[in-house]
Amino acid sequence: MRYQLFYWPEIQGRGEFVRLALEDAGASYEDAARKPGGVSRMMAMMEGEKRPPFAPPFLKAGKLTIAQTAAILFYLGPRLKLAPRTEADRLWLHQLQLTVTDFVKEAHDTHHPLGGEFYYEDAKPEAKRYTDNFLAERAPKYLGYFDTVIKKSGGPFALGRRLTYIDLSLFQLIEGLRYALPKAMKRIEAEAPRVVAVHDKVAARPNIKKYLAAPRRIAFNESGIFRHYPELDR
Amino acid sequence: MRYQLFYWPEIQGRGEFVRLALEDAGASYEDAARKPGGVSRMMAMMEGEKRPPFAPPFLKAGKLTIAQTAAILFYLGPRLKLAPRTEADRLWLHQLQLTVTDFVKEAHDTHHPLGGEFYYEDAKPEAKRYTDNFLAERAPKYLGYFDTVIKKSGGPFALGRRLTYIDLSLFQLIEGLRYALPKAMKRIEAEAPRVVAVHDKVAARPNIKKYLAAPRRIAFNESGIFRHYPELDR
Repeated sequence: MRYQLFYWPEIQGRGEFVRLALEDAGASYEDAARKPGGVSRMMAMMEGEKRPPFAPPFLKAGKLTIAQTAAILFYLGPRLKLAPRTEADRLWLHQLQLTVTDFVKEAHDTHHPLGGEFYYEDAKPEAKRYTDNFLAERAPKYLGYFDTVIKKSGGPFALGRRLTYIDLSLFQLIEGLRYALPKAMKRIEAEAPRVVAVHDKVAARPNIKKYLAAPRRIAFNESGIFRHYPELDR
Repeated sequence: MRYQLFYWPEIQGRGEFVRLALEDAGASYEDAARKPGGVSRMMAMMEGEKRPPFAPPFLKAGKLTIAQTAAILFYLGPRLKLAPRTEADRLWLHQLQLTVTDFVKEAHDTHHPLGGEFYYEDAKPEAKRYTDNFLAERAPKYLGYFDTVIKKSGGPFALGRRLTYIDLSLFQLIEGLRYALPKAMKRIEAEAPRVVAVHDKVAARPNIKKYLAAPRRIAFNESGIFRHYPELDR
């Protein structure tokens, strides 16, 4: 099966969680919206599909079109051998991924607390208040939670001995937060050593290493979810 | 199977989306955190479970503990005959439910744009700016999307001729928004007549009718997700 991923071509964003799974598995895929005319094609699909996605990313897999990052990973997981076998284990994995979804939304809202329709410059004091609380309460709570999950599983990965797609997502969370809020992250990640250990294990995987060094990997930037605005970091 | 739902006892909140499915199906369940000592038990489970929920609601189903509203419904759907048969159809249904999740988070953030840790009173101008954008852009976009989905399915329900759990959630969205922002909703819901028609069909279902009139149904209030602050409505 050759997959087609549709996502905004200039950013890692939510698409990156899917890319990491495809890359780690060495799957055959096309980053379709980055091809010439790709964005127009993506927009046309959002209009034209019988079952239209609300927003990118979405995956075309044969006749299926699947939107929502966590749902895409739920679908891909078993097919890419990045998910466990039983229904119970897959639900647990999915539940963790949905918690990543929640965390990513809050990470996004650090720079857009009043809604994505505002310019960052038009809500800067609000972004500062949001981020202060995010750094004091939310990020430590989420990362602490995932640290506990890894501890309870026996580690070294979130579900135990075998890597699954949630570990790739934890890698991306650490990468993104380090890029966006490096000073604060130094403090915060010290309280979640098991999550950092997962990050390091993922970074060392051959396919991920190759991907991170490849030109096709989009760099973090200030259009994405994780943005580096030094005035928000502390 | 007797299910146990764990959720904050004073509010409809995210738990209500699960309750509506259980009630419509006439399932046997206990609203466990509303029993004496229930909240302590809920908190203890969040600490003690081998696979701990990040937050309520969560469902105990035999040995399984499932958190995340959309994941709970994904699990319950086929068991309560509120989901279609094929993997493709169930993924589509789940994708729609995840879009409801996103919408619910934004509806919550109308009164808590800077984070749930702030008092409403400490971020009132921010709530007003958030809500203005929510009413002008976001709510019409989401409801318009679901209207299109119903239209494309052939209706009268989101997936076509048969009701599924997403229809119960659309009912709850309309109920909640009407409670919270009645003036604005009058305008907004006029643009999403198919969603309103789903709401009305759900409201007329015998088990839902009984539930809505029963003392066990918690009233909307200003601790929940949908809060009526007249100064935000326009």
